[in-house]
Amino acid sequence: MPHIALNSAEPGIRGLLRYRPETARPLGELTDVLLRGPSTLTRGERELIGAYVSSLNACQYCTSSHSAYAAAQLPGGMALVEQVRADPAAAPVAAKLKALLAIAAAVQQGGNAVTAGHVESARAEGATDLEIHDTVLIAAMFCMFNRYVDGLATIAPDDPAAYAAGAQRIVAHGYSP
Amino acid sequence: MPHIALNSAEPGIRGLLRYRPETARPLGELTDVLLRGPSTLTRGERELIGAYVSSLNACQYCTSSHSAYAAAQLPGGMALVEQVRADPAAAPVAAKLKALLAIAAAVQQGGNAVTAGHVESARAEGATDLEIHDTVLIAAMFCMFNRYVDGLATIAPDDPAAYAAGAQRIVAHGYSP
Repeated sequence: MPHIALNSAEPGIRGLLRYRPETARPLGELTDVLLRGPSTLTRGERELIGAYVSSLNACQYCTSSHSAYAAAQLPGGMALVEQVRADPAAAPVAAKLKALLAIAAAVQQGGNAVTAGHVESARAEGATDLEIHDTVLIAAMFCMFNRYVDGLATIAPDDPAAYAAGAQRIVAHGYSP
Repeated sequence: MPHIALNSAEPGIRGLLRYRPETARPLGELTDVLLRGPSTLTRGERELIGAYVSSLNACQYCTSSHSAYAAAQLPGGMALVEQVRADPAAAPVAAKLKALLAIAAAVQQGGNAVTAGHVESARAEGATDLEIHDTVLIAAMFCMFNRYVDGLATIAPDDPAAYAAGAQRIVAHGYSP
């Protein structure tokens, strides 16, 4: 049961966005720019970073939902998402994405955990400055969303079908309210 | 030196906002709504929550800047801000604000660290659901900003005067780009 009385029965962040539309608007815009706007990282890759960080933060709602959104937009589907979440260094993804996932994991620990070595490794695999920037901000943004969703004890459905339905909506329409 | 080549010499988040205006816009709007929009928490109290979370995250730039912004908008000034950062439970602030600071400290640890007991304590001191919501989201937002600023190794000036000048600008004009 959520810590506060929401104005809907919607689970996870959806209930929070409905409760506080003034913050929902910029949160939706930020998410759309970072996860769906023009980028040399695919939408699937960016959702994968979000799902991975959410799993490191043990946020069930965000992990389940963004895993579904990543799976819907990656050739490897949910099997690949689960491999990345379990062990990104061993997962069958490109070396550049592995290096970006390592940056994201450091961001999850804290900003000061990101070292010049992390950044050099990503650059050596072909990552651009903008890709490194966006990876840091995507990981940081999920550290916000995970805390928002769990800090208010929102509901996380157990049924995977709930998240798969959400994935269809996000892939088609994005995050803007 | 920042991990990536920015397009200005501006320190901290200011250099990042200039580098990526597409994300700067919603980030500025979110900050303005939460820290300066209509609320039963004063602007000084909300900046204090941000300064406190930033200090827990050891983010020098954000701690210095939001301490200056809080000090400029609180009757107790910088002395009070420093007392809160050092030991919020012992600082001379109202019991409700102490309970909200305890929620913010839990959010900094992780969303799942916020307990029903934290929320009940705040409610017992008169905190509303919206105040609890906004405290959680403010704390979570600073967990994002701190990681963004330090994850890209931006410059944090040592001179307190740099932050005091920023405070005058923020108090007068807010966060929108």
